[in-house]
Amino acid sequence: MSKMLEEIRQQPAAIEKTLQSGLRQAEILRKRFEKSRPRLVALAARGTSDNAAQFGRYLIEITTGIPVSLAAPSVSTLYHAPLRLEGALLVGISQSGESTDTNMVLEEGRRQGAMTLGITNEAGSSMARLSDQVMLVRAGKEISVAATKTYTGQLMAFYLLARALGGPIDVSDLERLPDAAAAALKLEPEVAARAERYRFMDHAVVVGRGLNYANAFEWALKLMETCYVVAERFSQADILHGPIAMVGSAFPAFLFTPPGVTWPVMRDLAARLQQLRTEMLAVTDRSCPQAPRGAIVIPARLAAGGRRTARGLPEDVFTPIPYIVPAQIFAASLARIKGFDPDKPRGLSKVTQTL
Amino acid sequence: MSKMLEEIRQQPAAIEKTLQSGLRQAEILRKRFEKSRPRLVALAARGTSDNAAQFGRYLIEITTGIPVSLAAPSVSTLYHAPLRLEGALLVGISQSGESTDTNMVLEEGRRQGAMTLGITNEAGSSMARLSDQVMLVRAGKEISVAATKTYTGQLMAFYLLARALGGPIDVSDLERLPDAAAAALKLEPEVAARAERYRFMDHAVVVGRGLNYANAFEWALKLMETCYVVAERFSQADILHGPIAMVGSAFPAFLFTPPGVTWPVMRDLAARLQQLRTEMLAVTDRSCPQAPRGAIVIPARLAAGGRRTARGLPEDVFTPIPYIVPAQIFAASLARIKGFDPDKPRGLSKVTQTL
Repeated sequence: MSKMLEEIRQQPAAIEKTLQSGLRQAEILRKRFEKSRPRLVALAARGTSDNAAQFGRYLIEITTGIPVSLAAPSVSTLYHAPLRLEGALLVGISQSGESTDTNMVLEEGRRQGAMTLGITNEAGSSMARLSDQVMLVRAGKEISVAATKTYTGQLMAFYLLARALGGPIDVSDLERLPDAAAAALKLEPEVAARAERYRFMDHAVVVGRGLNYANAFEWALKLMETCYVVAERFSQADILHGPIAMVGSAFPAFLFTPPGVTWPVMRDLAARLQQLRTEMLAVTDRSCPQAPRGAIVIPARLAAGGRRTARGLPEDVFTPIPYIVPAQIFAASLARIKGFDPDKPRGLSKVTQTL
Repeated sequence: MSKMLEEIRQQPAAIEKTLQSGLRQAEILRKRFEKSRPRLVALAARGTSDNAAQFGRYLIEITTGIPVSLAAPSVSTLYHAPLRLEGALLVGISQSGESTDTNMVLEEGRRQGAMTLGITNEAGSSMARLSDQVMLVRAGKEISVAATKTYTGQLMAFYLLARALGGPIDVSDLERLPDAAAAALKLEPEVAARAERYRFMDHAVVVGRGLNYANAFEWALKLMETCYVVAERFSQADILHGPIAMVGSAFPAFLFTPPGVTWPVMRDLAARLQQLRTEMLAVTDRSCPQAPRGAIVIPARLAAGGRRTARGLPEDVFTPIPYIVPAQIFAASLARIKGFDPDKPRGLSKVTQTL
């Protein structure tokens, strides 16, 4: 069995551990932010960690109203332009904590007056040392080059950060996520069997929206790096502004269709793709009003009955962790079917250094 | 001849007109921002306008130090989360000024205390009516669904905005851009001849960095919507964090390699791609220290002699407008070669309404 698949299976334990050990740190941060609330959150990351940052951007804006920007590292690392970051919280996200550019952005941000926070697996890393605060992802050592448990661990870290920033996120809701991930893991035989169909797939498009937009990037990245599939990724709105022209009957589409506020627009997109005779595979769950075509249904009821949770959060707020699990299994299975080693993609190593 | 190609040729006149008519508005804005400087600039757009926003993000951060965020429209349009935008400048970018979601983001931002600015071709549009300020793109009517002169007009509008926000951008440098675009247009026969080679191309990757990152998105979008090529687009750093695994000898790569701070990292990427036997086509100009493999060389010396311009701006700051021109010609030519009508891509209309 690939390390990637082993690590996919370790996720319920990894997110549980990240939650339990992170609660205390979240409480410390909450008290600090109560005294002085950041006016802006800036996120800096690369690769899978950058996809987690995409999730963090939506989660923090939706639950706290604080504007979030994704830092363009080159502004610091190549152009050496000083950004005005007084009163801002600058968050770096890196599995190893040794990503050169992310750390340079943190160092420069600190000089410009930002409070810095590192989200990393490694307590002894450069990132942990140079950040004012650290939120540890307790996923254990990740061996596969294709990151999986790191990603869901980082999503959990972002829930804790959003809570610390004043977002109405209950610990009891977070405590249900390991079980939701475990329920999604039970789909492994079904997902592996479905992946068989895609042995000859060489291109695809992955679409999500809102809180699951980041998952579309992550599914596509897994397909690119482990299966060498040319995987495009778009928001449901962005694909309609041009790229849909290239999609036709020989174009497999992968969708995230959670119940809640993004459901009506994702349903409309699915209808449009059906007219184009595009074959679709959708990740959804039992609480979705209607299972989309070819859906992989997560056997958990993740969403609140109404449109919003008891504390006013949107219905899909807790879907991203369990929803990415079948996508990860799909990529690991497809890599095996295509005869590739998902743990060691050609031309990649675990820690990539860029500027 | 396609309307798209006609409109590509109209660009020197369109950016000249946008510059001349925009200078007065930039001066009004400059005085206003001198009294109260935005603490954050948020940009909202879709499609080609969103690619122009990507450029604006780098330009404003690099030349003014003000942090820039790209608004995620769904946060307003679907999740209805109120963002804290007091003291922020919220900029909407839309050719028609009738983009539903961009306008909703502007309306909601205004309610949350942001100053709003619309960058649009249409003085009588909904966007122009609902924004506090308007910066007009004077490109004339754009008929082709594939936007070209709108894009470069929007880039010019961003130079004017960056100047209004205090960026050290000289009018004399902007006045050279219509000529630089005209010089790039002279490459039409060469670019059209080169496009012949790619008749059977069904996938590709486009890479840029920094100020030309947006151009990579725009070249890829033109390839997707007019040639139905599955075109991936990455920054030079992002492709190394995973996607490079899928690139091989049958994978055409298109690069923007201006002289200046991004040149060393783009040169390293090109060397890596060469090892993978990837065939490359690069857009560069005469002032580049070394013409990359298969380069289309713009017959203009765009950059300052040293690493920075006289006023301390990076050497590549004025390359994006002339650099996108050969890419646009390439897409229009390839569409013709492949037998498609670039003016009316299948399944698209000029104004796309999304939420």
